[in-house]
Amino acid sequence: MKIELAENYGFCFGVKRAIKIAEENTNAATYGPLIHNSKEIARLDKDFKVGLVEDFQTFKPGDKAIVRTHGIVKDELAQLKENGIEVVDATCPFVTKPQEIAQEMSEKGYDVVIFGDESHPEIKGVKSYATHGATVVTSVEELHDLKFHERIALIAQTTRKVEDYMEIANYLIPRHKEVRIFNTICNATFENQEAVRKLSKKADVMIIIGGKNSSNTKQLFNISYENCPNSYHIEDENELESEWFLNKKHCGVTAGASTPDWIIQNVINSIEKSIN
Amino acid sequence: MKIELAENYGFCFGVKRAIKIAEENTNAATYGPLIHNSKEIARLDKDFKVGLVEDFQTFKPGDKAIVRTHGIVKDELAQLKENGIEVVDATCPFVTKPQEIAQEMSEKGYDVVIFGDESHPEIKGVKSYATHGATVVTSVEELHDLKFHERIALIAQTTRKVEDYMEIANYLIPRHKEVRIFNTICNATFENQEAVRKLSKKADVMIIIGGKNSSNTKQLFNISYENCPNSYHIEDENELESEWFLNKKHCGVTAGASTPDWIIQNVINSIEKSIN
Repeated sequence: MKIELAENYGFCFGVKRAIKIAEENTNAATYGPLIHNSKEIARLDKDFKVGLVEDFQTFKPGDKAIVRTHGIVKDELAQLKENGIEVVDATCPFVTKPQEIAQEMSEKGYDVVIFGDESHPEIKGVKSYATHGATVVTSVEELHDLKFHERIALIAQTTRKVEDYMEIANYLIPRHKEVRIFNTICNATFENQEAVRKLSKKADVMIIIGGKNSSNTKQLFNISYENCPNSYHIEDENELESEWFLNKKHCGVTAGASTPDWIIQNVINSIEKSIN
Repeated sequence: MKIELAENYGFCFGVKRAIKIAEENTNAATYGPLIHNSKEIARLDKDFKVGLVEDFQTFKPGDKAIVRTHGIVKDELAQLKENGIEVVDATCPFVTKPQEIAQEMSEKGYDVVIFGDESHPEIKGVKSYATHGATVVTSVEELHDLKFHERIALIAQTTRKVEDYMEIANYLIPRHKEVRIFNTICNATFENQEAVRKLSKKADVMIIIGGKNSSNTKQLFNISYENCPNSYHIEDENELESEWFLNKKHCGVTAGASTPDWIIQNVINSIEKSIN
């Protein structure tokens, strides 16, 4: 039986990159959780001595601080460097980009509007780069009472749905001379869905790995099930049943965005064992 | 009886300005019709000796050429000047603006997309300013087979409906890294409608002047009629009936976008006579 991974699955590019950076920087600490996955954070602590610090002022000169995927507030980054902390930047490049846009647009005199969650670390970081300030909104309604100048730069949190972003854009465009819209939404989730759609059309058994409560994993399962009735949603290798693979020729594997590679690898190893 | 003109009515700012320029430049000729109103063009010819030239190469050195409200193709403008023609620019400032935007965005490396009618003189002019070319579309469907780079600048013909413009924007935004949307739609029609709405709420008789086939004049009449049942749509002063003004205290007057001021003035003079 052929085992084939989806073209896009599990951790996105930014998360994979951050974990690699953490693994290469033992005896360090991340400022805030590196990613939103406690198992993976525990593994980094145990295997690579990468700890977790919640208050950046805890870092002492000579310490090594890893900036999480979501980025960091500009002033805190400056203060870490000022305090003699070695800073290792694991900010997702898809987050660095909106930070740069916020700064450039603010300095060019645009009113910067950010569509996202003001309390989310990513947005705290992006907003801090807008030299002359930025307005953060989560819905069109919040815009009704706000006044802007003629030229607006619009930025979205990377994880937002594009349909919701368009609502904000559609409100602003007719009301202003220029609206400069930056498509800063990361399409990793979308790509995972496209990949499972493609793979499930040719496989005769599909394994979808991820938390049973994970919304994006459930979506992957639903897409897979539409094309391949032999689709199974599992959390790890312990749930596999060897009869699923009886007389099967092509096993497709994918995983939700919160599933680390090592869990996926364990699943693949177990499937291989079960068919031999 | 008080006679009050709507805050916005008839010719838009750009048309009024162009006619004033033409009147101040006797013994000249416009390159193409100055505005889309033959009565007015005949008047300018008769009273101010402002003729009409359809081919710009007809102009001879020393001639005075008036550029129409819709603007002119960049190369033709250069050639007129090169040929020693005195150029008087009556381009509407709301058209000059998209010309400048097209040039600046094209030179900054944006793919310039223009929403408008490629055969319209305004769009021919605007497009000619995009140094590296521009794509003109009239519908979303036309975009389906087109490929652009990551950064797009979007410009609209001044007379387009904003809802249609948003459709184009909504297609482009999710598909590109940056879409810079310039709201180049002129809101003169919209303003005339707002003004007649306001005036017809306080007047007890309303006179709406404009061609019987004029779509925008009919819209003005409909809005007026909702608020003031004594609303009358006329083409000129000959249609006025004195009984309309019997026992009335407040007469509102407005006019469609193709109605020259002198027709409006004739109507007002006749109303004044009829009530004295």
